[in-house]
Amino acid sequence: MGTLVASCFVIVILEVAWLYGGVDGAYVKYITVAGVVEGKLNVHLVPHSHDDVGWLKTIDQYYVGSNNSIQGACVENVLDSVIKALARDPNRKFVFAEMAFFQRWWLEQGPETQEQVRKLVNAGQFEFINGGWCMHDEATNHYIDMIDQTTLGHGLIKSQFNKVPRVGWQIDPFGHSTVQAYLLGAEIGFDSMHFARIDYQDRANRKNDKSLEVIWRGSKTFGSSCEIFAIAFPVHYSPPEGFNFEVSNDFEPVQDNNLLYDYNVEKRVNDFIGAAMTQANVTRTNHIMWTMGDDFVYQYAESWFKQMDKFIHYVNKEKLPALLFAFMIDGRVNALYSTPSIYMDAKNAANVSWPLKTDDYLPYADRKDAYWTGFFTSRPALKGYVRMLSGYYLAAHQLEFLVRRRSSGPSIYRLGDALGLVQHHDALTGTAKQHTTNDYEKRLAIGASEAEAVVDDALSCLVSKKPGGQCSLPVLNFSQCPLLNISFCPATEEDIPDGKSLVVPAYNSLGWNRTDILRIPVTQLIDLDNVTINLRNFYVKAYLGLSPQQIPKYWLVFQVSLPPLGWNTYFISKAATEGESKTSFLSTLGDPQNDTIEVGPGDLKMLFSSTSGQLVRMFNSKTGVDVPVQQSSLYYSSSIGGTDDSPASNLYVFRPNGAHPTIVSRKVPLKVVRGPLVDEVHRQFSSWIYQVTRLHKDKEHADVEFTIGPIPTDDGVGKEVITQMTANMATEKTFYTDSNGRDFIKRVRDYRSDWSLTVTQPVAGNYYPINLGIFTTDNKTEFSVLVDRAVGGASIKDGQIELMLHSRGVGEALDEMVCIANNSTCKGLMIRGHHYISINKQGTGARWQRTTKMEDWTASHVTIAITMNLSYSLPQNVALITLQELDDGSAPLRLAHLYEPGEDAEYSTLAKVDLKKMFARRTIKELKEMSLSANQEKSEMKRMTWKVEGEATAEPTTLRGGPVNVLDLVVELSPMGILLPCPYSRHCPLCLILCNQLTFKVSFKHFFFHKDVYPVPQIGTI
Amino acid sequence: MGTLVASCFVIVILEVAWLYGGVDGAYVKYITVAGVVEGKLNVHLVPHSHDDVGWLKTIDQYYVGSNNSIQGACVENVLDSVIKALARDPNRKFVFAEMAFFQRWWLEQGPETQEQVRKLVNAGQFEFINGGWCMHDEATNHYIDMIDQTTLGHGLIKSQFNKVPRVGWQIDPFGHSTVQAYLLGAEIGFDSMHFARIDYQDRANRKNDKSLEVIWRGSKTFGSSCEIFAIAFPVHYSPPEGFNFEVSNDFEPVQDNNLLYDYNVEKRVNDFIGAAMTQANVTRTNHIMWTMGDDFVYQYAESWFKQMDKFIHYVNKEKLPALLFAFMIDGRVNALYSTPSIYMDAKNAANVSWPLKTDDYLPYADRKDAYWTGFFTSRPALKGYVRMLSGYYLAAHQLEFLVRRRSSGPSIYRLGDALGLVQHHDALTGTAKQHTTNDYEKRLAIGASEAEAVVDDALSCLVSKKPGGQCSLPVLNFSQCPLLNISFCPATEEDIPDGKSLVVPAYNSLGWNRTDILRIPVTQLIDLDNVTINLRNFYVKAYLGLSPQQIPKYWLVFQVSLPPLGWNTYFISKAATEGESKTSFLSTLGDPQNDTIEVGPGDLKMLFSSTSGQLVRMFNSKTGVDVPVQQSSLYYSSSIGGTDDSPASNLYVFRPNGAHPTIVSRKVPLKVVRGPLVDEVHRQFSSWIYQVTRLHKDKEHADVEFTIGPIPTDDGVGKEVITQMTANMATEKTFYTDSNGRDFIKRVRDYRSDWSLTVTQPVAGNYYPINLGIFTTDNKTEFSVLVDRAVGGASIKDGQIELMLHSRGVGEALDEMVCIANNSTCKGLMIRGHHYISINKQGTGARWQRTTKMEDWTASHVTIAITMNLSYSLPQNVALITLQELDDGSAPLRLAHLYEPGEDAEYSTLAKVDLKKMFARRTIKELKEMSLSANQEKSEMKRMTWKVEGEATAEPTTLRGGPVNVLDLVVELSPMGILLPCPYSRHCPLCLILCNQLTFKVSFKHFFFHKDVYPVPQIGTI
Repeated sequence: MGTLVASCFVIVILEVAWLYGGVDGAYVKYITVAGVVEGKLNVHLVPHSHDDVGWLKTIDQYYVGSNNSIQGACVENVLDSVIKALARDPNRKFVFAEMAFFQRWWLEQGPETQEQVRKLVNAGQFEFINGGWCMHDEATNHYIDMIDQTTLGHGLIKSQFNKVPRVGWQIDPFGHSTVQAYLLGAEIGFDSMHFARIDYQDRANRKNDKSLEVIWRGSKTFGSSCEIFAIAFPVHYSPPEGFNFEVSNDFEPVQDNNLLYDYNVEKRVNDFIGAAMTQANVTRTNHIMWTMGDDFVYQYAESWFKQMDKFIHYVNKEKLPALLFAFMIDGRVNALYSTPSIYMDAKNAANVSWPLKTDDYLPYADRKDAYWTGFFTSRPALKGYVRMLSGYYLAAHQLEFLVRRRSSGPSIYRLGDALGLVQHHDALTGTAKQHTTNDYEKRLAIGASEAEAVVDDALSCLVSKKPGGQCSLPVLNFSQCPLLNISFCPATEEDIPDGKSLVVPAYNSLGWNRTDILRIPVTQLIDLDNVTINLRNFYVKAYLGLSPQQIPKYWLVFQVSLPPLGWNTYFISKAATEGESKTSFLSTLGDPQNDTIEVGPGDLKMLFSSTSGQLVRMFNSKTGVDVPVQQSSLYYSSSIGGTDDSPASNLYVFRPNGAHPTIVSRKVPLKVVRGPLVDEVHRQFSSWIYQVTRLHKDKEHADVEFTIGPIPTDDGVGKEVITQMTANMATEKTFYTDSNGRDFIKRVRDYRSDWSLTVTQPVAGNYYPINLGIFTTDNKTEFSVLVDRAVGGASIKDGQIELMLHSRGVGEALDEMVCIANNSTCKGLMIRGHHYISINKQGTGARWQRTTKMEDWTASHVTIAITMNLSYSLPQNVALITLQELDDGSAPLRLAHLYEPGEDAEYSTLAKVDLKKMFARRTIKELKEMSLSANQEKSEMKRMTWKVEGEATAEPTTLRGGPVNVLDLVVELSPMGILLPCPYSRHCPLCLILCNQLTFKVSFKHFFFHKDVYPVPQIGTI
Repeated sequence: MGTLVASCFVIVILEVAWLYGGVDGAYVKYITVAGVVEGKLNVHLVPHSHDDVGWLKTIDQYYVGSNNSIQGACVENVLDSVIKALARDPNRKFVFAEMAFFQRWWLEQGPETQEQVRKLVNAGQFEFINGGWCMHDEATNHYIDMIDQTTLGHGLIKSQFNKVPRVGWQIDPFGHSTVQAYLLGAEIGFDSMHFARIDYQDRANRKNDKSLEVIWRGSKTFGSSCEIFAIAFPVHYSPPEGFNFEVSNDFEPVQDNNLLYDYNVEKRVNDFIGAAMTQANVTRTNHIMWTMGDDFVYQYAESWFKQMDKFIHYVNKEKLPALLFAFMIDGRVNALYSTPSIYMDAKNAANVSWPLKTDDYLPYADRKDAYWTGFFTSRPALKGYVRMLSGYYLAAHQLEFLVRRRSSGPSIYRLGDALGLVQHHDALTGTAKQHTTNDYEKRLAIGASEAEAVVDDALSCLVSKKPGGQCSLPVLNFSQCPLLNISFCPATEEDIPDGKSLVVPAYNSLGWNRTDILRIPVTQLIDLDNVTINLRNFYVKAYLGLSPQQIPKYWLVFQVSLPPLGWNTYFISKAATEGESKTSFLSTLGDPQNDTIEVGPGDLKMLFSSTSGQLVRMFNSKTGVDVPVQQSSLYYSSSIGGTDDSPASNLYVFRPNGAHPTIVSRKVPLKVVRGPLVDEVHRQFSSWIYQVTRLHKDKEHADVEFTIGPIPTDDGVGKEVITQMTANMATEKTFYTDSNGRDFIKRVRDYRSDWSLTVTQPVAGNYYPINLGIFTTDNKTEFSVLVDRAVGGASIKDGQIELMLHSRGVGEALDEMVCIANNSTCKGLMIRGHHYISINKQGTGARWQRTTKMEDWTASHVTIAITMNLSYSLPQNVALITLQELDDGSAPLRLAHLYEPGEDAEYSTLAKVDLKKMFARRTIKELKEMSLSANQEKSEMKRMTWKVEGEATAEPTTLRGGPVNVLDLVVELSPMGILLPCPYSRHCPLCLILCNQLTFKVSFKHFFFHKDVYPVPQIGTI
């Protein structure tokens, strides 16, 4: 017998039987099979995660989930856990938009997971929507960039899954453009487009008359053939309140285990039905969509799907077991897992009429005093850099095409990847955090550097090879000058020994012959102003960490002539008249003899007051147009806000303190430099605003180069700096701004075409995004300003045009700095950029002439090489948008007609492009017309038909061009046909964007690896 | 030929080939197969989630993930996602401790998941450790409750998985007891025990000499036969800093994709090795354990496992690919997925010697001024309620056993579940939030109500059935009075008509014959004091939402006699002398004739000063012990703290403002009520402290009933109220407190046996938890106080004993309130409780006598029923701990020897229990000796052997009793044998805890369903 202490005896055999043996219903198999049910209100639950490709964190931080102290977000988790959750139940669905993230994830997956994803995609459980590299902004991008980034994503989807996205999903961008609707929507092959952000007044009205969902015809020319079913959400892209099921978020889970406390199935089902009914009250048909997602949610997807499973199960359940309380079966609602495509199909099948929408959804205000028009200008250096690289990217692709793509070595892909990312609605917009912006700029700089290497190789090959021969290894050591915008280009600054020449090859990426002016800094000849010298010194230190060895004193200005898609090489050597400056002329202020100074070597003249330094008038001696014009620098003082209802002016929102801006100076020191090629008017508005106005002999516009910054904020006041041009014209509140650099849209001050506007912000509410230009007219004269990057602009008074060029806030608001010496010395960011001013007779398409003139410097061209038939040029009304060689030797080619019908007798006509002549040195094997993003053949595109309110029947599907006849290889392009007069459309976008992309080279290698913040030319481009 | 606009042509066939085709190493298959490697430092990664069964949220809120605004925590997600993550890789492991959570989850799973879990358990990937219903506290629980809750969890594991947990995992409790080590550790079958919280000074010393891991012999009697390998963590139960991988937390992920930015494999591997080396420096052998978890983590388990996969892969990798930088291979470290069992086995296999530890790890301080001794007393009403229900639970099980368990109907299970939960280290401790505490109390009240129904049925059956017959349906309508502690018991308060009787059955759950005193409120006869009447009025409103119809004026006091495990029924009717009060005697203050009042109808006398109302001395006329004793009410003013280093006094931490407590009153109004059975001394210390001292004729201790509250905090000062008893004794800093109500441990003021204590908190640092009692001695006299619930206690000066009884903080600290009229009127909580004071000759075991006396009220017993053989009683030195019938008819039986060797000539001996006589009415089929938690047969338990420093060789495994001889069914129990003198051990724990559990019944049904906060008798128990 043992000795026992505090031990346990069991009589008979111990066998604990647990409660659950006899408990009913503890395990529930949820029934989630639920298609559309006619006669019920169908609640389409659309699981999604809105994953910004950079914002508070960088894209890679978001992807891997680092830096979570800023934001707990890891897209790797989203995709990992979504795939696992979808595999658990074949009824579950999920949609994904941002391919830059997907690509990162896809690369890391093993064969098993990839196979699983392919199955989910094929089963329709995992659906790609939108499918661009990012979810691009719609206010500050150029349409070519939008197409490029979409193509990048669509190509991935096509090649890996053989799928074509069916819907646009622009849920977060801060307003929506017509180009998005008809070009990046309909022309890309989407039948619907979904978004959350429209003006709060607009939304209220649309909810009232159930017009949140519309047929949007963004192109006035193409009308229904480019229409798209556009869906604005009633609240936001998040679920109705109380239905966000993100792991660890605060929500009330469906608690259906009656063994536990807080059983709430009836309550939650009623919550669901209540929220559904609320939305049904503002929605046509018996289909509503719930966007079951939010920013970076589905970190643990099961947390969402588990709740949705339960809701679908219990909401649809015919009879619920009577538990503690009797349960009311509603029966009105059917909940189902869905996608925007399924929703769109259901809407289309309902066969009802929809309201028509033609204008855009810009600008966007989410509340009375929060007009999101600040981001039109935010981070102007980034915006300028992107526009410059966008053109460079195009040219690099062309050059690569010309010499044939190499299978290894440097690639243009990385620049395309970076440009794709930066189209994101928190990148180019300037609304990302500074460190994220640095990351974008670093990616751009690295991409540009790789592309430079490709361009180097290509140019070297083109310049050195014999006609018909192969490229040898590069024999010429080219270099490029990405910091030319701060006048830093060491190779050109070196003293050129007698008898030697500086070799400058120039490449023309346009489809036309072209003559233009190049400017490079040299140590001799033409004065560099002090502002530029100081700028150069500080920024070279900041970006390169070194002090320039030499200080160039002069600009060399010379003109080049180039064939279409061709190049030319210039040899620059010293002439005998070195040192003699016969071009400069100095005008001092206060000359009583003659208060007015006229400048301009060509037809266009500008008159300045020598007393005040102010612009007085412009006239064109050829057209006779003569308009009194003032031009001033001013700033709006930023509101400091305080409450949510009263926001401070910030990266997103422009909110001036009061209506009237402050004039920086009424008397401006003036200096005039004259020459046979160009007259320059230098004006110092203040210590931080410098402006050079150039009138070229053969150009009919004034080129205004501004240098702004550091904006002083010692007074504790944020400042949003504008340039304001006031013409003596009765413009009747009306002006025109472009849509993503393509169409021009009529704007009327204090007015919206879709609803009766309550004006709360008389300035900010009248700002619009400018990518190409802005103009106004008084039936006699057109007064126009074109821009070199995205900015905000407005016409606050008749005859007046203003552009916001730069801003600097205090405290938490935007305060971009540039630092040297390990951040010991920092200054507010300076930017340098251009705009172009022109006056024209109303209705005349101005022709900015091209001529050739040489200076004392000898710049003789000896080599001309072209890819086209020697005698061929693209028609002046057709622009080359894309020409790029792919791995397999095929090449996407995009052409665009630039004129609208009736604008110009000569150019507003059908244009023909002879591809045999265009590609004279290649034999075309096959030609297919594709959708805009090149992921499907045009002939295979099927478009839905929709009924529009007030139209008796749906228009028949517009014929969108049959199969292209490839026998003669001549393609026709009709005028783009916008109804508004746009005399500048032929200069847009290629001229202004691409003209500066003449490729010239000097030595400079690996300069961008020595600092965290890569030497992005933040001060804008030349 | 089509008309084309801005569309895309592709020459040849478009086929985008993506980058990843040619990229090496984007997909990495992580190698996680890694066992122990000799010769390297093995880092055992132990994935775990510390899931409190209630704390900031209730258990069910934690389980389903509701109320996440308080804390983002959902245990359902933990278990869901862990199972999925383990299934991904057979090398991954996870340990889980809290079975109350696991049971909830397990019940909800379908057969597939259950099968998957069984596989994972059998494969050792998912391991149960600790395995109790909760992770119980070790300071404020009674050991019987600890056993019961552990048994509940171990039974689930055994029945569902046929597994027996091998290690204790008490990682969070705030200090550790010897009872935990030898009884709930070794005796439960664990070979090791793991925990995080030990005194900061102790930890520093142990790190210094590598003694964090010890052999702990918690029982001085049983020594090595009850030893356990005890592991204190070097920091906490979280991973080393930087290795917490909870989803959305801020950590630096291993970024091994060199296509992305921030590649950091080398850096992270070095971080890992650095942290491992740091820990190795304070640990013996080449095995260290990383607790890869924290509170409620693994919400998305993959987030953890993904990182750990990578660390195991790269830390163990022999050669890393040279990437951007050369990679240093360390080679010193081997990382592996592990569990505490694997770690323990590795430690054991290392065959080295370990330091010996014998004392406990109490009290716990985590920094200089933060002694976690406040929770010993926090929420005293809850602590009292639990102690009361614990005894009720035991009695209910016995009664159910006596009448045979029913297969349906009310069950005691729910009370066991609630009592199991509330043992949790944030429940009974009082450290949970108020709403969580309400939830515990609600569960207890519901459980008690169900158990009441079982007891009703059983008693009804027992009282009514014929001997040998079957129970008919209940014929008697019994009711119970759970609110007797606030003197609310409507049935007894009704006027009993002449000729009728009140029927009071009384049940004795002890194994011995017993005589005791019952007190019930009646409308006649014995005065109820005003404090009690006011208390009754307010709390009946608060708990029941009603005003009592009648106001009882008197207590009926009568004595009952009961057989072991038997019952008796008393009939109470009016006697002729109704209304005549011959027992009361009123003494007013300031009687100059006689300053001293002597009270006590029996041997024990107390003398009070009629001037001051203070206790002056105690003496026992039989033993001759005579000691001057003062007794005062005082309070410590709470520190308001401020910084992390200077914490406020709170639910956890006791931190008085200054060393000296404030005396509530020096002159106390006094009222004496005398009678033949009992003398009462009523003293009003203040408007919020009332005290009745009762001296019963046949008891040798004073019963002090205190009523405290609402504690005033209008002065902005929190107060911690103590009772302080000062005897004129030279106790030389020494006193004794119990360990979980079982052993007594010697305490020395300002001293720790394991290290040289730096005293920072002279009061709080000397507080110890009291579950049974505290005593001190001067070699002549023993002065002892026993308690009715867990409290904190100390002896701050020689001869002095103090108990903290109640506290109330201000601001965020504890401020328990009780409200009426929909929370319109709230008062600070009042508590009522008891302690028992005794003086004895040193070395004598005091015998508190039992006699029988009747009052004028006729209380005649007519029915005696017993289950044992009529002439049998358990030996006086053996207590019945558990007797419970299971579903299959078997029953766990626990018996405990109560005396230590040498304490008493008669009782410190081998005790025999004759089970045939004990279960005279049942036939025993089989008898098995089991482990303490009844999950394995004692004979099958295997124990590891460990070497202890200073001992030449490991002791041989102690024989722990062979198979029980079941022929004569007599079992023997040896004395429990603690070395300290403990004259009260035979009163502990059953007498004090269970004596009051005589079950008597009056009407009261469903009272607890009408309010959110259930009518927990928060003011303590009678």
